[in-house]
Parts: sequence; C-alpha cells; structure tokens
Amino acid sequence: MEQLFVIKIGGNVIDDNTSLQSFLKDFAEIKGAKILIHGGGKIATKIGDKLGIQSNYVDGRRITDEATIDLVTMVYGGLVNKKVVAKLQALNCNAIGLTGADANIIPATKRPITKEGIDFGFVGDINNEQLTIENLQLFLKSGLTPVFAPLTHDGNGQMLNTNADTIASTLAVGLSKNYNVRLIYCFEKKGVLENVDDDHSVINLITKEKYQQLLQAKKLFDGILPKIDNAFAAIDSGVNEVLIGDAKDLLQNTTEKVNGTLIK
Amino acid sequence: MEQLFVIKIGGNVIDDNTSLQSFLKDFAEIKGAKILIHGGGKIATKIGDKLGIQSNYVDGRRITDEATIDLVTMVYGGLVNKKVVAKLQALNCNAIGLTGADANIIPATKRPITKEGIDFGFVGDINNEQLTIENLQLFLKSGLTPVFAPLTHDGNGQMLNTNADTIASTLAVGLSKNYNVRLIYCFEKKGVLENVDDDHSVINLITKEKYQQLLQAKKLFDGILPKIDNAFAAIDSGVNEVLIGDAKDLLQNTTEKVNGTLIK
Repeated sequence: MEQLFVIKIGGNVIDDNTSLQSFLKDFAEIKGAKILIHGGGKIATKIGDKLGIQSNYVDGRRITDEATIDLVTMVYGGLVNKKVVAKLQALNCNAIGLTGADANIIPATKRPITKEGIDFGFVGDINNEQLTIENLQLFLKSGLTPVFAPLTHDGNGQMLNTNADTIASTLAVGLSKNYNVRLIYCFEKKGVLENVDDDHSVINLITKEKYQQLLQAKKLFDGILPKIDNAFAAIDSGVNEVLIGDAKDLLQNTTEKVNGTLIK
Repeated sequence: MEQLFVIKIGGNVIDDNTSLQSFLKDFAEIKGAKILIHGGGKIATKIGDKLGIQSNYVDGRRITDEATIDLVTMVYGGLVNKKVVAKLQALNCNAIGLTGADANIIPATKRPITKEGIDFGFVGDINNEQLTIENLQLFLKSGLTPVFAPLTHDGNGQMLNTNADTIASTLAVGLSKNYNVRLIYCFEKKGVLENVDDDHSVINLITKEKYQQLLQAKKLFDGILPKIDNAFAAIDSGVNEVLIGDAKDLLQNTTEKVNGTLIK
C-alpha cells in the first residue's frame, strides 16, 4: 500500500512565524501523500480579547459558546488555515484548506451536557462511522494536500470545535484501510523521554511490551500517558505507526531512523 | 454539454440570516453542477471596527492594507464561507468551501500602484491563463458544490482580496469549455429595468442588438452598464448566458422562463 503521512502541528508552531515557515518548508518537501492538521494557537484568544469574547475554561478545556465558535471558525478556519495554505502553495505544495464541514468529511455530534452538568458548548465529538473518506482519498489521489483546521459540523448547519489531535487520529484510522499510515504528532519535546529532566533521553521505539516495562518502572511523566494510550488505540484501529516528536525534526521523522519516538 | 450554474450572491443576502437561509434552500434544490461565489457583507466592517481596523476607501474601493487582508481572510474565508458550507450540508448539498488559494484554483497578482499613485494594497487581479480549472472540474464531477469566498493568492504566500463578481465571471469563462454555463448575478433588483422607477419593468432578454437600442434610447441607469458590459465580455469568452436577477427568484432564474434579465 502507498505510504501516507498524517501530521499534526500545535499552536506553538502556528504562533511563531519563523517556526511555522521552517516547518512548512520541511512539510512541503515530504514526497507523496500527506495531510496536515493544525491547532489554533493563541491568536484566537488575542483576537477574542479585542472583540470582548471571554475565554471560559472547565477542567482545562475551553467552553465553546456561540461567540467562541464564530471566533474559532474565523481564526482557525479562515486566518490560520488560509495562511498555511498560501504559504504551502508558495512552496509548490498543492494544499487545499478544509474543515470537517467541507465535503462533509468529518460529521460530528455536539457533546451532550456531562453527568456533572458541564456544558462544553459547541464542541464536536466525531461520528467515526460517518466519515466521508472517499472525498479525502479523491483529493490525495489528485495530488492535493489537505490541510485541516480543528473544526467539524453537526450536519444541521452548526460548526463545532474539535480537538486537532482527535481529528488527526480519526483521519489516520479512516485512511489506514487504503494507505500505510504514519501518524506524526509534533509537540514541544523531541519525543518521549526516558528521563523527564534529560532532553537527550528520547526513547526511539515504544512497542506494547516496552510500554508495559516503562509503566512498571514508573518512568513516564503523566502528561505523556494519554498520548501513548491514544497512539496504541490508533494502531489497534489500523494505523501502522505513530510518531511523537519535535516539529523541527519532521523530515527525519518521516524516515526509518527517527529522532522522535516511534510507537508501533 | 452538461449544464452548470455559476451563481454569485452579494453582501445583502449574506448579512440577513432569513434571506440567506431562504436563498441557500433554493440553491440546494438546483439539480446538477453548480458553484456559489459569495461576497463579504457588512460583517467584516463590523468586526473590523471592534478590532480597531479602519476601512479606507479610494474611488469606492476598499484599500486592503495588511490588517484588512487578515480581516477579510478571517471573515470571508472563515466565518462566512464555513457558515454557508455548514448550512448547505444541512440541506443535503455537498458543499466544499474554497478560496482561490485552495488547490491553487485562482492565482492572482497584487494590483500595481496606479499611474495616479493609488495603492489598493492586497488586492488581487486574477491571472486568467493560470486558473487550475481541472481541480474545480474534479470536484464538480465528484458531486461536490464549490463555494468560493472572494479571495485569491499571489503564489508567494500572500492572500489577496478579489471582487466576487470578477471571480464568478472568471470561473464561468474557465469552465465554459466543458460546460454549458449560465452565470447568475443575484443583486438587489429583479433585473435590468426598462424604467428605473418601475420595479415591474424588468427586461427579460437582452441581446447585443437590444442592448444597442437601449443605449441609444438612454434608458439604462448608469450603475447597470458595467454589469451588462461584463456580461457580454463573459459571453464573448464562452459563457452561454448571463442572468441578472433577485436572489429571491433564483429557482425561477435557473429555468428557461426567467423573472430576471437574461443576457445572451
């Protein structure tokens, strides 16, 4: 099967023009089929502040009220997405900017109010069974590079805010039937560290066995556990391998000899 | 050849939720291949005011400085475009929101400073010879309905502001080699009026001969002349017919017996 890279970058890369330009240059150089999913960055909060839209958080998650979904639709779906697309076009990468509403690729459902009574507002949980993967494949086969903003829709006319990591893993799983998929999460460290205080202690390969050993040795810091759990969930659903690494190491991390952490 | 409708709506429809919903319902009912191009509406000015971005005009045209191109990229390319896409999806129309940067469909050039020294800023004049019509045809053939925001790009990473009427006629001409194209401009009147003061005096058909007669009789009000000139220019470049009419009459205006003004 053909190789496909599904790559997620976070707000830290989006917010810094030099990092973004350098990342996009590397991304454009990757040969073959690839998809980019970008987070939002702090720009939405900045613009929201100017517009008098307050950010409300519950348990570290932003509450997406009506003003906020309009804000992120503008900023993620418009400003950030088209900036990335225009820059990729300049690098001879034939990018096409998308949200989950476009071509109905990612239908979602507004998250119900939790048992504890928390209403996250216009947050979308993806309807995995209803992905329109055919259209995404059509774009890939035509040499286009889809660039997703972290937005979905409810099928009833409402845009929804959806976590970029989740969009990345969902698309990776959806395409794994037809592609050999490496899902790459770019984050602020080189990879999963054997010693949290030593940035050079990157573990280059984590198998399920190795993961059990690391868990038993209590070597992994808490924040990384859900990322690894999600990685294995994606692999169990068909993705070939998941890589967690630094945006700066992107090109190296598309090869066999990675700088980050390969999970398989 | 297959029929294609290329339809442009202006800000007056975008700004009013009831008009927009009613228009999109009709648009979704049109069978076969269709493309929507939307203008911006007053929402960009409203949001710009809140953000402290001033609107500067020269000769009735907005000057697009750096803050303004970011503003319109957000508002037209994000907020308005995705709102229209999500609403069309709810009406079972498989819309895909695009700017001219996406899939490199509409490359443009930043307008040079005029002889009179006027710098329009980040305004794009379309490079007609460089349209990537294949990708647009690919979407149409796959049953997708492209929805364009009035934005293009310069191929060097910069988004540009481009008039929605011009995008509509350019795409209509570009697709006329492979489709039987009716280009429909929705505006605030029923059509071209024989008597400016009588809304019921719509001229249903204007041929070149009829146009000469009307010009000689000095019956046409000034504002309509460039629209008709542009219509004939599109027809001379391959478009089958151009219709100028009211957004409310859209469905009727896709038939042979139009309520608006058919130019052919």
